[in-house]
Amino acid sequence: MTEPIFVIPLWADLTAVALGGLQGAVFAAGFRGQRRLDFLGVALIGIMIGMGGGLIRDLLLNVTPVTLQSNWYLLTATAASLVGMLLASVLTRLNALIVGLDALVIALFGAFGTSKALALGLPLVPAVFVGACAAVGGGVLRDVLVGLPVAIMHVGSLYAVAATSGCLVLAGLHAFGVPIVAAAIAGIVVTTVIRLLAVIFDVSLPEQRMLHRRKVAVETSAITIIKPDEA
Amino acid sequence: MTEPIFVIPLWADLTAVALGGLQGAVFAAGFRGQRRLDFLGVALIGIMIGMGGGLIRDLLLNVTPVTLQSNWYLLTATAASLVGMLLASVLTRLNALIVGLDALVIALFGAFGTSKALALGLPLVPAVFVGACAAVGGGVLRDVLVGLPVAIMHVGSLYAVAATSGCLVLAGLHAFGVPIVAAAIAGIVVTTVIRLLAVIFDVSLPEQRMLHRRKVAVETSAITIIKPDEA
Amino acid sequence: MTEPIFVIPLWADLTAVALGGLQGAVFAAGFRGQRRLDFLGVALIGIMIGMGGGLIRDLLLNVTPVTLQSNWYLLTATAASLVGMLLASVLTRLNALIVGLDALVIALFGAFGTSKALALGLPLVPAVFVGACAAVGGGVLRDVLVGLPVAIMHVGSLYAVAATSGCLVLAGLHAFGVPIVAAAIAGIVVTTVIRLLAVIFDVSLPEQRMLHRRKVAVETSAITIIKPDEA
Repeated sequence: MTEPIFVIPLWADLTAVALGGLQGAVFAAGFRGQRRLDFLGVALIGIMIGMGGGLIRDLLLNVTPVTLQSNWYLLTATAASLVGMLLASVLTRLNALIVGLDALVIALFGAFGTSKALALGLPLVPAVFVGACAAVGGGVLRDVLVGLPVAIMHVGSLYAVAATSGCLVLAGLHAFGVPIVAAAIAGIVVTTVIRLLAVIFDVSLPEQRMLHRRKVAVETSAITIIKPDEA
Repeated sequence: MTEPIFVIPLWADLTAVALGGLQGAVFAAGFRGQRRLDFLGVALIGIMIGMGGGLIRDLLLNVTPVTLQSNWYLLTATAASLVGMLLASVLTRLNALIVGLDALVIALFGAFGTSKALALGLPLVPAVFVGACAAVGGGVLRDVLVGLPVAIMHVGSLYAVAATSGCLVLAGLHAFGVPIVAAAIAGIVVTTVIRLLAVIFDVSLPEQRMLHRRKVAVETSAITIIKPDEA
Repeated sequence: MTEPIFVIPLWADLTAVALGGLQGAVFAAGFRGQRRLDFLGVALIGIMIGMGGGLIRDLLLNVTPVTLQSNWYLLTATAASLVGMLLASVLTRLNALIVGLDALVIALFGAFGTSKALALGLPLVPAVFVGACAAVGGGVLRDVLVGLPVAIMHVGSLYAVAATSGCLVLAGLHAFGVPIVAAAIAGIVVTTVIRLLAVIFDVSLPEQRMLHRRKVAVETSAITIIKPDEA
């Protein structure tokens, strides 16, 4: 497990940052909440999705954040956010592209997080945990900051399961002696495919309460409130 | 203050993690917000309550998170969450048990946080602060992630006061030369008892604005909105 | 860039903490949300605004939080919060004072963050980022904990732009060989002035969607809901 410290190539790391920044900005540009995001808000979401995964990973590993050791990370994330903002009206029509980008971004951050954790000597289970946190952390920060319900906590599209599965495949293959690059590629493929299949077939986890066969309360409200942003 | 680094025994740490995971999952299973939590969301809450305190403590102390140095923490938290989920319908009827577990969990995380901080040479006041953050941090994360008002910020049951008092007793006794284990036990008892008494007698802090003797605005709304999840 | 480690004098650091604590408590005392803050909640907001900037800076830099190395930081933040609470009804009438304090606090935290990052050898862009995060971080934490929309994400008063500009001036001057103290003073002045001008002239960034010349949906709701706390 204690091989010479695994280094993610800068180009790969910056690619993940750029894809994250692009995807985050397109998401944020399409955001319609109670209050609108301004330019800066959209750029911040892009930077956060692009850099959040790496920051969370390095905080959990208690190492100096690699994203703050070079000018390139922030410049890349900011540039990608600006491109995302400018192309937002085009890209939002290409919904499949956004979903695909998002799947790839969580796969990349998950794989980088897990391999760095393994390289630092963490056991398998926490290495997978660090990868999963790096994969979904940017999205959680985004949801909290814009005041949306946090996506991974709710009945949805197996977001965190996809991330965790890929990290588990990576760590498992590595434990059986598969070279880290091959294991990382396998993990990235697994996460991306699970996430895309979940979106395509609209799979979701059963709700907790179905376990108890409780009667579902009638969910119609006495007054239907038409929120302006839904109208 | 700079005694040989104090080590929390693994069994004690894992007991706190397990109790936290159990309590978190039972809470989450009973959660009825605008959107429901799925299995994964419930498990995540359990893991977060079980491991959040230790993670926050180690982040504040800038040491490598001990909960990520071994497979046992995550496995314990996950197993406890699953047990909590399966037994939720039974346990929610035993409300006293849940409140008791919760009081014990914050007491344990507070005591572990303060004693680790003292062992690393922190002065008394920040050591108490680290303990209090470790004690209530998991609950704050939970509230933010599920979109509830953050409990410790609002008129409630002296949650943070109970945690801080126990940590203060621990650190104070330690400053007077009481052995750390005895001081920790005293701190755990103080936090648990204050918290339980606060729940039993429904004590809360006065509101800020009562200081100013401002007139309380009439708090009836023109339209009563019946939310589905309250019906 | 690798000059002997720059040390922020304790009195300057504690002044920033005290101003932050004061300003945070006055803000919190005036807060009227769905649920009210109690004494402890107000004190927590004060402590968070006073100490949050320094904590976030040190977490990002992966150094032991300086605010936890001495009793003075927490004692100062707590005392300032209590003063803020007691004087809240007076101070809220002096709105200009609060806005001025707030501008000065973000300027101080931004300057301290950027100069510490530069002293630790970070390149210019991430040093500015750390300063900006230290400047606005306390406010973001506050908004998340009390359940407000996060101010810097929304059309507002150029909050983050003011912070970033001052940090950029500091780091730019330092790169051209200006001594760090002079550069820090210039940065503090720039942030304070931009922030005050933005408030006075009510400047805000254009909204993202104006880029696309989309038609603005009619924003009137079918039912006007009068919330109690707005009445």
